[in-house]
Amino acid sequence: MAVYTNVSADEIASFIAEYDVGDVVSFKGIAEGVENSNFLLSTTKGNYILTLYEKRVNPKDLPFFLGLMNHLAQKGINCATPIADRNGNNLKELCGRPTALISFLDGLSVSRPNVQNCAHLGKALAQMHLAVSDFTITRKNDLSIEGWEKLAASCEMRADECFVGLGDIIHSEMAILKENWPSNLPTGIIHADLFPDNVFFLNGKLSGLIDYYFACSDMLAYDIAICINSWCFNSDHSLNIAKASALIKGYNEERQLSPAELNALPLLCRGAALRFMLTRLYDWLNRVEGALVKTKDPLEYLSMLKYHQNIKTVTEFGVKV
Amino acid sequence: MAVYTNVSADEIASFIAEYDVGDVVSFKGIAEGVENSNFLLSTTKGNYILTLYEKRVNPKDLPFFLGLMNHLAQKGINCATPIADRNGNNLKELCGRPTALISFLDGLSVSRPNVQNCAHLGKALAQMHLAVSDFTITRKNDLSIEGWEKLAASCEMRADECFVGLGDIIHSEMAILKENWPSNLPTGIIHADLFPDNVFFLNGKLSGLIDYYFACSDMLAYDIAICINSWCFNSDHSLNIAKASALIKGYNEERQLSPAELNALPLLCRGAALRFMLTRLYDWLNRVEGALVKTKDPLEYLSMLKYHQNIKTVTEFGVKV
Repeated sequence: MAVYTNVSADEIASFIAEYDVGDVVSFKGIAEGVENSNFLLSTTKGNYILTLYEKRVNPKDLPFFLGLMNHLAQKGINCATPIADRNGNNLKELCGRPTALISFLDGLSVSRPNVQNCAHLGKALAQMHLAVSDFTITRKNDLSIEGWEKLAASCEMRADECFVGLGDIIHSEMAILKENWPSNLPTGIIHADLFPDNVFFLNGKLSGLIDYYFACSDMLAYDIAICINSWCFNSDHSLNIAKASALIKGYNEERQLSPAELNALPLLCRGAALRFMLTRLYDWLNRVEGALVKTKDPLEYLSMLKYHQNIKTVTEFGVKV
Repeated sequence: MAVYTNVSADEIASFIAEYDVGDVVSFKGIAEGVENSNFLLSTTKGNYILTLYEKRVNPKDLPFFLGLMNHLAQKGINCATPIADRNGNNLKELCGRPTALISFLDGLSVSRPNVQNCAHLGKALAQMHLAVSDFTITRKNDLSIEGWEKLAASCEMRADECFVGLGDIIHSEMAILKENWPSNLPTGIIHADLFPDNVFFLNGKLSGLIDYYFACSDMLAYDIAICINSWCFNSDHSLNIAKASALIKGYNEERQLSPAELNALPLLCRGAALRFMLTRLYDWLNRVEGALVKTKDPLEYLSMLKYHQNIKTVTEFGVKV
């Protein structure tokens, strides 16, 4: 949950006066996203999300993020999209923070996705990958293999504070991934953080994708790997094959995965597991007493990593190549 | 900010199915209130607040709180009011917590109230006191002089961890308040926590009062004292006389304060300052590492207490008796 910056009634009223969105009726901090301050703004014309970008977002990346959302919305993807003020600007400043007014998406995120949710997710993810193919701005993935190496180096020495033996696990996994990480798979813009809380459903249908603030250029299939990890694991840390295969099948219906992409999935899942384990571990090792944000458990991703280490081929995900 | 309980999409959908409020369209945790989990629920019929009562609220008090809100709304006071399900129940259960669906109030709270806000507040407070005069349920104020004694006893020994000399200050102030606390002033149901974040304004007018979960039976003028402390102090810890006198004048226009009530105000302000200092001190001394709720500064109320200790008569608040 996150509201880092307090915005006064006067500040929001004068900010909104620069837009053609009616008058402020209500303004409440919401518990959505952990990187930024998010507010639900109701005006005489409707509901909006106001996002103040806090220190974890690099202001230089904002034109990419907002441009991407805009591009996706214009292509008919159900996604939150920035709203321009009367002068055509969609990136503004409020309380010293870069700030954007974003469209409000109906729908609710599911905390325990079912098989059908996963099928819908796969379809929407592929549609997003296709829609973004002619988007011209790129953004390096700071959290791919080079980024992991840096994170691993900064965490390895203290990793055993979290779990005995974790330092060694990270070290050897890093070596395997460096040796085997694919370099010839189709790339494009990926969401890179499409966890269940970033996907809305309404009446059983996927109604929207939010939170594009990790989006970057990378292998498209790596986005699927991130989703398999965050959507398809059972509470006993085993993979739910029905969910994983539904996700991949849903994706495949919209954008056909190549045999090379399918065969790479187990390794990409290992990489995705390491990536989220490392960032969670970093946050856990550097947690601040009394902080407003609860640190997420790095060990959830350790168990996924161990699961994937034992996967021999993608057929164990319930799909044929 | 507060969302202590996660409610899934399925759980909220089946909960709302028992009400005649349309279908769920959106459901977001909001940063309002620190005692309970609060959600903004949008349905096909409108916006609502869903409150799950967490451990700090005694379930036995809920019929009083909800009944009071209902009573005030029926009397035309702008206040959030519980909504009954199809069977007429307004107190239900969700995720193991007592839960109520509450009407949504338009408006925004002001972080830096101006003189006019204070005048409107005084008026609304008096209207609330009058409206509640025929409400038949009562509730003892657990945070009046007896409650302070208990809190003081549990904090005194460690108070100097927060501020050197604080233990002695509490001890001597407690003795003075016990000796002089009034017993013959008009009583009724008071809000007892009408801080700026519990009052909404829209287009310069007061649009609503929320968060009745400290309401109790006590001296009506004590409610004014709580508001003087939380609305009328300057950032340099001096009283803003214009705000205090506007608040008292606004109140007086609706419900005439007796000379005894006016003369008691400085002492009631001392009591109110001690009360919030003690609860904040208790929370500060018992704060939990990594807790989601930021502890509020007890010393803000120490400076108010010191200010009031030097006040000789209520004329120093800018009012004539």
